[in-house]
Amino acid sequence: MRGYKPQSSGIPRPPTVDLNCDFGEGYGAYTFGQDEVLLQYVTSVNIACGFHAGDPHTMREAVERAAAAGVSIGAHPGLPDRLGFGRREMAITAVEAYDLTLYQVGALYGFVRAAGSTLRHVKPHGALYHMAGRDSDIAEAVVRAVKSLDDGLLLYGQSGSLLLEEAQKQGVRAVSEVFADRTYRSDGTLTPRNMPNAVLTEPKAAVGQALDMIVRGAVRTSEGIEAAVQAETICLHGDGPHAVQFAAALRQGLLAAGIVLQHPQ
Amino acid sequence: MRGYKPQSSGIPRPPTVDLNCDFGEGYGAYTFGQDEVLLQYVTSVNIACGFHAGDPHTMREAVERAAAAGVSIGAHPGLPDRLGFGRREMAITAVEAYDLTLYQVGALYGFVRAAGSTLRHVKPHGALYHMAGRDSDIAEAVVRAVKSLDDGLLLYGQSGSLLLEEAQKQGVRAVSEVFADRTYRSDGTLTPRNMPNAVLTEPKAAVGQALDMIVRGAVRTSEGIEAAVQAETICLHGDGPHAVQFAAALRQGLLAAGIVLQHPQ
Amino acid sequence: MRGYKPQSSGIPRPPTVDLNCDFGEGYGAYTFGQDEVLLQYVTSVNIACGFHAGDPHTMREAVERAAAAGVSIGAHPGLPDRLGFGRREMAITAVEAYDLTLYQVGALYGFVRAAGSTLRHVKPHGALYHMAGRDSDIAEAVVRAVKSLDDGLLLYGQSGSLLLEEAQKQGVRAVSEVFADRTYRSDGTLTPRNMPNAVLTEPKAAVGQALDMIVRGAVRTSEGIEAAVQAETICLHGDGPHAVQFAAALRQGLLAAGIVLQHPQ
Amino acid sequence: MRGYKPQSSGIPRPPTVDLNCDFGEGYGAYTFGQDEVLLQYVTSVNIACGFHAGDPHTMREAVERAAAAGVSIGAHPGLPDRLGFGRREMAITAVEAYDLTLYQVGALYGFVRAAGSTLRHVKPHGALYHMAGRDSDIAEAVVRAVKSLDDGLLLYGQSGSLLLEEAQKQGVRAVSEVFADRTYRSDGTLTPRNMPNAVLTEPKAAVGQALDMIVRGAVRTSEGIEAAVQAETICLHGDGPHAVQFAAALRQGLLAAGIVLQHPQ
Repeated sequence: MRGYKPQSSGIPRPPTVDLNCDFGEGYGAYTFGQDEVLLQYVTSVNIACGFHAGDPHTMREAVERAAAAGVSIGAHPGLPDRLGFGRREMAITAVEAYDLTLYQVGALYGFVRAAGSTLRHVKPHGALYHMAGRDSDIAEAVVRAVKSLDDGLLLYGQSGSLLLEEAQKQGVRAVSEVFADRTYRSDGTLTPRNMPNAVLTEPKAAVGQALDMIVRGAVRTSEGIEAAVQAETICLHGDGPHAVQFAAALRQGLLAAGIVLQHPQ
Repeated sequence: MRGYKPQSSGIPRPPTVDLNCDFGEGYGAYTFGQDEVLLQYVTSVNIACGFHAGDPHTMREAVERAAAAGVSIGAHPGLPDRLGFGRREMAITAVEAYDLTLYQVGALYGFVRAAGSTLRHVKPHGALYHMAGRDSDIAEAVVRAVKSLDDGLLLYGQSGSLLLEEAQKQGVRAVSEVFADRTYRSDGTLTPRNMPNAVLTEPKAAVGQALDMIVRGAVRTSEGIEAAVQAETICLHGDGPHAVQFAAALRQGLLAAGIVLQHPQ
Repeated sequence: MRGYKPQSSGIPRPPTVDLNCDFGEGYGAYTFGQDEVLLQYVTSVNIACGFHAGDPHTMREAVERAAAAGVSIGAHPGLPDRLGFGRREMAITAVEAYDLTLYQVGALYGFVRAAGSTLRHVKPHGALYHMAGRDSDIAEAVVRAVKSLDDGLLLYGQSGSLLLEEAQKQGVRAVSEVFADRTYRSDGTLTPRNMPNAVLTEPKAAVGQALDMIVRGAVRTSEGIEAAVQAETICLHGDGPHAVQFAAALRQGLLAAGIVLQHPQ
Repeated sequence: MRGYKPQSSGIPRPPTVDLNCDFGEGYGAYTFGQDEVLLQYVTSVNIACGFHAGDPHTMREAVERAAAAGVSIGAHPGLPDRLGFGRREMAITAVEAYDLTLYQVGALYGFVRAAGSTLRHVKPHGALYHMAGRDSDIAEAVVRAVKSLDDGLLLYGQSGSLLLEEAQKQGVRAVSEVFADRTYRSDGTLTPRNMPNAVLTEPKAAVGQALDMIVRGAVRTSEGIEAAVQAETICLHGDGPHAVQFAAALRQGLLAAGIVLQHPQ
């Protein structure tokens, strides 16, 4: 149990959630996904930092656009594997995880500072996200890198992951992430993409799952039972044919249900 | 005229100079030069930031070593050309110069901050140094990038270059660099390396040239006349067969002549 | 004058031209342009070799698709500048030009051979194309690299360029390239893109210019006079909003005029 | 059992072995190891192909030097991880293994062909070597890539590995490699480097182990029993403080024992 609890004040407050998406994942002459369009649906963005995607130019532009749109800005460091888009696990050491995280977050920090804006959070990308979620040495190193740059930064990690646990250990504000369009297993992990029913393709079902997670802190798993999750932020995907339509449906569905959309405090 | 003048106080003060060298220019399994040894002779280091040389690991280690040695720490951003070690000019735009400078300085800034140390200066590397020294658009962009991260940063540039001029225009503290072991031409530029007598191979001659530059603000050019230079920092090279011997001789010669070695204020 | 002349046989033969386009210019998770669609309009493709664009996976797929479509396969080596898509000139030496050309063409050669197909030509990309077109040392090195791998390879270069001249000197079959949608100046060079009227935006005008170049060996320049060009191959662009429409119009226009479209012999 | 057997002819022939070392593992301004010196002790070299180490320039030079020295030339493809020198395992697919192997071997092939020499073998590097040795899908892909370029190429792999087994399945000549300075475990694998006694530091012991492996096809394991190995080639390391001394001792020891040193047929 992460143990994070909203402060009670006597007056019931509406449930809140953050909607985040990856942002600035182009490279040189290449564009990626539909992040420009997605920007209007989210309350925070994770900006690629030049390892798995992004470059100095995309980073500056992404920061400027995010600042102009008023969304919260985060760094999205990844493995040093541009060819694999940071999705292939690599046998890095914890020291390497520390170093590459600090490098990338520092680089983005420069652009944020130059833009007169504020870096609010860090969310590891792809394989680094998953490795930091289940390997305590990697998790420790990633959290420490974030904290050593700025101990006020928030750390986004998967609900129930070691990364969040480690953040709390080190006194870094952990933000628990869930996925609206992925199905869960009873142990709280995601159904792997290569299995049937890994993805919810119906926006209505995804909105329903999101509401369950936000309001009740629970998700109905593919095994048919309920698992506890904590939904402080929901990840929206910018690629895929229906990304924008999906994001719009989710945003609208949550607002209609009285959920307040705002970046984590 | 750059117009930088030491404050007069009535009491004559001994002349001072900074000795700088490039630092942390390895990459992955590769080492480069003898920067470890050179560290004891200098008062400031320029740490490679991962483009022309260096990587997250070398950067962290370089920062830690420089901090432990008590030398002043600077960033050494270069062109995105690791294969060419940042020595090949590239037709980059001013916008690209801004972005790549900010990226690299920001990345190093993270490590410096994590080490509880202070980033003091920026010195462009190789082809970027030369391009920024003679192209006013590139110079403007590099200075602006440095200033946008931290307007207290110093900027090292070649004596007489546009880069220093531009720094002063933007209110960034410019530090004028000279070379003890390179000969100068009457216009204040270096004799190109492919010409005869481009390099002083005799340590004694280099010490003499350095003293001339520090004390009298002048250098005897290869044409036999004197040219004005401002020697606030002297660059020591870490590669080459006699690098260490040369550095030792220079340091000793300057101290013996009563020059105070300290990083720029 | 390049002096290449079709062999005369008494019987008049219809004019022929090759239509080429760049191909396989994605990278990792990134796609680029509409080369899949363009494939049906061309008679030869230039496949990116992993430096300015492309990777082992895109290269294999591009070779397989080109082979399946029955178009002639060429290598498209570029400068080692993925971030700049090989469009930024770099101060490389002739030796470096030789080495990087041979490396890339050899790499593509492997995929072509594995596919049981034939590598037919080499066309330098972007900045390397332009540098090899006007710098005789670079041209000499590029041609020698191509020849040293396989002296039966054709070399595509801009009409009137030093690259073609150098190819002929070394006994390599030179193929003279023209652009249907770019305007020319009186010296036979292209109007730079940053000048007005650099690009023909009207397909009909481009078809007209192409026919002039193929049939009469001449182009009306922006100065209003005629310049001699040799049109053995025409470059179609795969990016830009109207790329496909333009390619279709050009192909249809040339066929309607009785031009035979085929790769160079 | 790999089942490769020298043809019997009635007349006893002296035992033979190949000595190989990695070669051309510099990059740009960086050099690596002492491969120049090692060249005189080996009968074949594995030349880095630009992914884990090497670049077009080092490859051409390495090929020219190896050809001049009369040693057999092989390609040494690695994972796309220059920062990690190809030593960190990456979760690549078999298709990716095929593509990256073919790319790199093709690139080296170009240089070998340009030098008028012959590419004789392929030996995967570092993590790719180990992955291909124990993962049958990766092994199958690597062998197929080699074969698809040239089915006369030899494939070097670790004695007892799946890579050799797969080579034989596909009809590619497998060359069984052993290590003179590493200790073995009873299952025929190497003692991991992080365990005590993983490395033989005494040249005499290494010569003894090498002779045992060549003449008797056996190695005394760290558990004290004997394991079967097939020693067709022995790997010499070019880095480490005693690399050259070790290589000299091994070569001398083998020659003194009547072993014929020659590259595999």
